[in-house]
Amino acid sequence: MSEKKIPYKIYLTEEEMPKFWYNVRADMKNKPAPLVNPGTLKPMTAADLAPVFCEELIAQELDNDTRQVPIPEEILGFYKMYRPSPLVRAYCLEEKLGTPAHIYYKFEGNNTSGSHKLNSAIAQAYYAKKQGLVGVTTETGAGQWGTALSMACAYLGLDCKVYMVKVSYEQKPFRREVMRTYGASVTPSPSMETAVGRKILAEHPGTTGSLGCAISEAVEVATTTPGYRYVLGSVLNQVLLHQSVIGLETKIALDKYGIVPDIIIGCAGGGSNLGGLISPFMGEKLRGERDYRVIAVEPASCPSFTRGKFAYDFCDTGMICPLAKMYTLGAGFIPSPNHAGGLRFHGMSPVLSQLYHDGYMEARAVEQTAVFEAAEFFARTEGILPAPESSHAIRVAIDEALKCRETGKAKNIVFGLTGTGYFDLVAYEQFNNGTMTDHIPTDEELAAGLAALPPQPQLD
Amino acid sequence: MSEKKIPYKIYLTEEEMPKFWYNVRADMKNKPAPLVNPGTLKPMTAADLAPVFCEELIAQELDNDTRQVPIPEEILGFYKMYRPSPLVRAYCLEEKLGTPAHIYYKFEGNNTSGSHKLNSAIAQAYYAKKQGLVGVTTETGAGQWGTALSMACAYLGLDCKVYMVKVSYEQKPFRREVMRTYGASVTPSPSMETAVGRKILAEHPGTTGSLGCAISEAVEVATTTPGYRYVLGSVLNQVLLHQSVIGLETKIALDKYGIVPDIIIGCAGGGSNLGGLISPFMGEKLRGERDYRVIAVEPASCPSFTRGKFAYDFCDTGMICPLAKMYTLGAGFIPSPNHAGGLRFHGMSPVLSQLYHDGYMEARAVEQTAVFEAAEFFARTEGILPAPESSHAIRVAIDEALKCRETGKAKNIVFGLTGTGYFDLVAYEQFNNGTMTDHIPTDEELAAGLAALPPQPQLD
Repeated sequence: MSEKKIPYKIYLTEEEMPKFWYNVRADMKNKPAPLVNPGTLKPMTAADLAPVFCEELIAQELDNDTRQVPIPEEILGFYKMYRPSPLVRAYCLEEKLGTPAHIYYKFEGNNTSGSHKLNSAIAQAYYAKKQGLVGVTTETGAGQWGTALSMACAYLGLDCKVYMVKVSYEQKPFRREVMRTYGASVTPSPSMETAVGRKILAEHPGTTGSLGCAISEAVEVATTTPGYRYVLGSVLNQVLLHQSVIGLETKIALDKYGIVPDIIIGCAGGGSNLGGLISPFMGEKLRGERDYRVIAVEPASCPSFTRGKFAYDFCDTGMICPLAKMYTLGAGFIPSPNHAGGLRFHGMSPVLSQLYHDGYMEARAVEQTAVFEAAEFFARTEGILPAPESSHAIRVAIDEALKCRETGKAKNIVFGLTGTGYFDLVAYEQFNNGTMTDHIPTDEELAAGLAALPPQPQLD
Repeated sequence: MSEKKIPYKIYLTEEEMPKFWYNVRADMKNKPAPLVNPGTLKPMTAADLAPVFCEELIAQELDNDTRQVPIPEEILGFYKMYRPSPLVRAYCLEEKLGTPAHIYYKFEGNNTSGSHKLNSAIAQAYYAKKQGLVGVTTETGAGQWGTALSMACAYLGLDCKVYMVKVSYEQKPFRREVMRTYGASVTPSPSMETAVGRKILAEHPGTTGSLGCAISEAVEVATTTPGYRYVLGSVLNQVLLHQSVIGLETKIALDKYGIVPDIIIGCAGGGSNLGGLISPFMGEKLRGERDYRVIAVEPASCPSFTRGKFAYDFCDTGMICPLAKMYTLGAGFIPSPNHAGGLRFHGMSPVLSQLYHDGYMEARAVEQTAVFEAAEFFARTEGILPAPESSHAIRVAIDEALKCRETGKAKNIVFGLTGTGYFDLVAYEQFNNGTMTDHIPTDEELAAGLAALPPQPQLD
């Protein structure tokens, strides 16, 4: 077969764009373990979840069987505003590295939220609107998820209440203003607006907040305000389902040119991007139709896959949410102030955790100075200023491409470039000034986090 | 003819992308007036310009006759990294406005520099490299041009010295860090590195600088350091030539679907974007083949077209550069601190000035609160957070679309969306807080600026 010339960027036509999401759980022999009620230690039912989440999203969360989930027309319409995202052949990077590898990246940063988060934000907002709700609540740390949700809610005319970790609210005013421009109300957390916020402020006056606290406030408001529900940008099965649009587009683009990836690489915090990117590929792998190497990349400062434990744990540091079975460092583990805010999560998607546990994926932990070296090299070579999170994947993609230079093998490497670094320039400034440091938790620190795991449910 | 369905975004294939720039001067009966030496009041020759600019760029600057200028292969390769930019059909905006108009925008913000400036930056850096130079110098205010030039120089391995207005250097640290990440040296201006900088600092200790001062420093360094030349991101004929890639792509995309624009709208500071966008369309208009309405949009606070004078003037406030014949408010005119930094220039491209003077274009001045209303509406509707500069075009595009709602006419409106507003969130914050104000210069203020025009050359 004569090889078609591969363009710098492969775009799909509107006709080629996926019309359904891919539910990789349908292909898993060992399904992800169910969410569990921390009080009863029994699996959460749809009824248990109804006060917190929208109905259709609960159905998606619990559905381990339907492989192809049709994307509603309205969401397809919204996707057309910023999708397809380009699959880029990194010709310049390959040349600079002198590697025979062919490197491709799926770039999800070409929308105002600056990341892939919009893919699930619009879906969650859509189902909330469809249910006749007034609005949604959420928390945000670095702000990518909050920005994406604000955009989606603005489009649908839905109210959006964002609880933003106070220190981020003050130190990242630009993210805050993007959300406000999209009409969201942004409240620094902890706030006096909620019982849990007032309690925390009474106990810890002057606290700058935490993600766990912001989750608690957002959930409280959602469950106590008529017409509101809570939404979350990662970890959950439903989020991976929506994010499968990344992997589907990638696969369609590669198939157009007869390209079969050897290695697929993505950064992993809660797993939303990596889970979405690999979904259709992992489906083939699970069905035994094709083999791919899949590498999850995490910060050495927050190494849930590589140094965590596969166990039931709380998703939030406030310990009010259901328990999920996942690779975790313990809900009380506080990662060092790594600049990849989106990867500073103690746990991991239950779907990815199960796949990793069953040997379908590898994981690698990288240090942030090495990540920013890769980020800078990539920026100068490929032109895009990457987010610190995304740069974890760049680091390992470069490492694998350099191995190909040693072996002379022309492997096809695909990685997810989840977003842009426009709001991360404090981190770049540190790197430029040579004052960036690495933080690797000691064994003792990790043991302390894991010692606080909740009682483990005994399920069949 | 059956109408083809128009997608949300029209992308060109690599084969369809333009292979030449369009020099609209070839179609102009009245050519733009030549640059003039402020001492002798005679036209600048190539030899006069050689100490400041690269040779090939001087040739392009002076060439009023060659209509199609081939784009060198290396630049075509770089363009493939971030071009084609999408031509977007603003379906959502049309629906929200309830207008029968068809609105299209050419979005140039999908690259790390965040604007169209990269189109000329890579060309200027390429010719500098080709001439065997070591590096280039430039000034930057808001930072879009400096960022674009840094990216281009990183790609080509060329040194890049940016003089950044001191107040911007301190208040816009993020822009500065993007440039440093791309390897540029960024110096706050005025600095102690140049004679002119030391002189200014001695006379005005504590000054926060100005664009005119930064230009003076950049030119001094270029002309006194072996292997360096000075480059500029707007106003010049060569810049409009490079930026014609915007208009050419737009025209090819429209032609593919048989769409003929009725109105073409762009913001205008020095004219780089508008000049590039309209080039091939204006060519047809000048040759009498087709008619288009062309509207330049400028800030009411810096109204060079609508309230300025068509005369020879300095391009810089330091008054060391050649004189250009253009619509100007006087080189001493200091616009109020409008947030559209890229439009705060006292003059205008000589090409656009001549076209406006000869009646081929209209111009409209808009106030910044009205601009930010349009920006916010656009962000919420189309998803993209626009730069304040670009939002001037959005304002008038919306106004024209609303007129269509009145008349019932389905006009085709095309506008240039030059960039994103990620680094302009201080302005958005003011708008969100309701503290943004408008600044319209009084007749007296304008008269003072125009009173200081230099002696006018008497050319044939």
